[in-house]
Amino acid sequence: MSSSTYRVVDIHTHMYPPAYVQLLETRNSIPLIRKFAGAKEPRLIILPAEAESLDKITSEDPDKTSSHLPGRPVTTHYSSLSQKIHFMDSHQIDISVISLANPWLDFVASEDAGETAKSINQEFSDMCATVPGRLFFFATLPLTAPPETLLAAVGHVRSLKYCRGVILGTSGLGKGLDDPALVPVFHALAANKLTIFLHPHYGLPSEVWGPRATEEYGHVLPLALGFPMETTIAVARMYLAGVFDQVPELRLILAHSGGTLPFLAGRIESCIVHDGHLVREGKAGSGRRTIWQVLREQIYLDAVVYSEVGLKAAIDASGVDRLMFGTDHPFFPPLNSDEQGEWESVTWNAEAVRKALGDATDCGRAVMGGNAIEVLRLHEDS
Amino acid sequence: MSSSTYRVVDIHTHMYPPAYVQLLETRNSIPLIRKFAGAKEPRLIILPAEAESLDKITSEDPDKTSSHLPGRPVTTHYSSLSQKIHFMDSHQIDISVISLANPWLDFVASEDAGETAKSINQEFSDMCATVPGRLFFFATLPLTAPPETLLAAVGHVRSLKYCRGVILGTSGLGKGLDDPALVPVFHALAANKLTIFLHPHYGLPSEVWGPRATEEYGHVLPLALGFPMETTIAVARMYLAGVFDQVPELRLILAHSGGTLPFLAGRIESCIVHDGHLVREGKAGSGRRTIWQVLREQIYLDAVVYSEVGLKAAIDASGVDRLMFGTDHPFFPPLNSDEQGEWESVTWNAEAVRKALGDATDCGRAVMGGNAIEVLRLHEDS
Repeated sequence: MSSSTYRVVDIHTHMYPPAYVQLLETRNSIPLIRKFAGAKEPRLIILPAEAESLDKITSEDPDKTSSHLPGRPVTTHYSSLSQKIHFMDSHQIDISVISLANPWLDFVASEDAGETAKSINQEFSDMCATVPGRLFFFATLPLTAPPETLLAAVGHVRSLKYCRGVILGTSGLGKGLDDPALVPVFHALAANKLTIFLHPHYGLPSEVWGPRATEEYGHVLPLALGFPMETTIAVARMYLAGVFDQVPELRLILAHSGGTLPFLAGRIESCIVHDGHLVREGKAGSGRRTIWQVLREQIYLDAVVYSEVGLKAAIDASGVDRLMFGTDHPFFPPLNSDEQGEWESVTWNAEAVRKALGDATDCGRAVMGGNAIEVLRLHEDS
Repeated sequence: MSSSTYRVVDIHTHMYPPAYVQLLETRNSIPLIRKFAGAKEPRLIILPAEAESLDKITSEDPDKTSSHLPGRPVTTHYSSLSQKIHFMDSHQIDISVISLANPWLDFVASEDAGETAKSINQEFSDMCATVPGRLFFFATLPLTAPPETLLAAVGHVRSLKYCRGVILGTSGLGKGLDDPALVPVFHALAANKLTIFLHPHYGLPSEVWGPRATEEYGHVLPLALGFPMETTIAVARMYLAGVFDQVPELRLILAHSGGTLPFLAGRIESCIVHDGHLVREGKAGSGRRTIWQVLREQIYLDAVVYSEVGLKAAIDASGVDRLMFGTDHPFFPPLNSDEQGEWESVTWNAEAVRKALGDATDCGRAVMGGNAIEVLRLHEDS
């Protein structure tokens, strides 16, 4: 995709460094990584539905063939830096802003979280340093740690040369991102010009997928619907809690083009101005910044939406200067072709940009890389 | 909005006929209608969050002023036919396709459901007959009744002159719309050219809104996000279950422009072709009709999405010949102006059509009324 005239940046691309893989291997409940006798690679199990089938398999038949095992294989794509670079090269990606994948450190004991975060962030920093200019990263915060450790972690990641922000799930300190206890963390991030990459993990309660989902629908419902709906709910809660007004310098990139926010922003606005409670409390009045304004002032969206329809809506909502290309590597590998070749999950998103904006236009280039370079200061060495 | 050259049709507009209001008044758990000493009008309480505050108020202070009461006032807009006609006239709506609002008859005891449905559908039919040509309706099915009663009800509503389909929630017979037991009902509806108007009611489990929602965010989250997400999940489950292939003549109109389906269709497709389980089962192969195809072949969307961004995505997904204007009357009345005048919730949606398609174009006219007249046979008397 790259050419001499512009650079392609992937801002949604994950790594599981070896130390993190080891951490997941020691666990007995999800999230975990487990080896199976019938499988070449260990498997990463993160969804509640997978945990159910894990219990069944472990008790019934530990040698089951890998095609019926829960989770997904932890291939070299997860933890190998050279594999990441190969993936970038084979997709003409010049720069990747890597991040730890879900569930980050959400499960780590309070007393360990600070040190674990420190060592993982250092590992990311070291990876970036081995290929100067090609990798930057979003750091991971020790959210289960005591407040002073958590704030100290912001100071630490800020000092790391290739760090440009933090990846954040939706649970925050356990009560969601509209928790007032998070406001000092948001202030610290904003003051240090660290952008939040907001990413889902918890989806929706399994009951909403119905009785047939686990057996028949694979992971489609929790991944295709649960993940983007979780992101939308999280950011709507932040908006209603007034977080964007309290921390006006806060900047967020929302995974998967905002989940469903561009499509639902109109309905959110209508529900606010027609809500008796909010109107009585003076929270729906004319002085209020609308969700549309916040989308254009404090929010960026990745372009991981797999369709021209979705991409256009994202652009219409937040502006073409606020969209950033991403791949979601190492997830969604091709199932019917070589994993070392071209990934359809990547080409769908690049194709959507090409169709919506044109290959060689300023707008297309901005989404494919220019916006990320500008917003995340990827032309700066530190 | 109407003019001499085209007609405006509202396909998303509800009525609570007096017999249904009485039914809700006899109930002790949600959904219910209750009178309060401090309030002029009885109040409709349907959301779980409202039930919580209802318990509190009933035990604490039954005379609380109406501004702090749960639910929404049941004004004459809910049950008065002349009020519906006034609303249509004041918004230049020529034809309304009225429907019972949620939760329909989902809560009615099995032995009563058949008769209740029959009398309510007859009441709708009589209302339409009093203003020939201005009203048609979507009937209500007795989903809790025994199968033979339920199928007989399809035969009954088919015989009613102004009936053009049925309004359906997402719970089906209690296990969702991907329940194989519903397939005969879908066949019966399709065979009788009765279109389903799929409408949410149950939202998402309250826990996803977090600890601050009930006290601080009014009904914004369950209504703005829970409702459209519920619709999206329901239709995705139908798609994955193969219902659209099993009943190829089935036609659905999805409320709120499909919930979030136009925005998420790309991600649904990507998750299907990258799902190991579905690929192994042969369910992700090339013979499969994609969700995009189903959107353009069996699904219609209303235009109740409150923004040009959302409306454009809906049009891009399903085609301009498959969108139909709606108001959601009597919900979302103006809070700061006269309820007898113009409703902002209506003008936002009309304005979105005007901006996206132009006032006087063929496309604009199609969405404002032409599509509904064609698809629902509103030029036919019976």
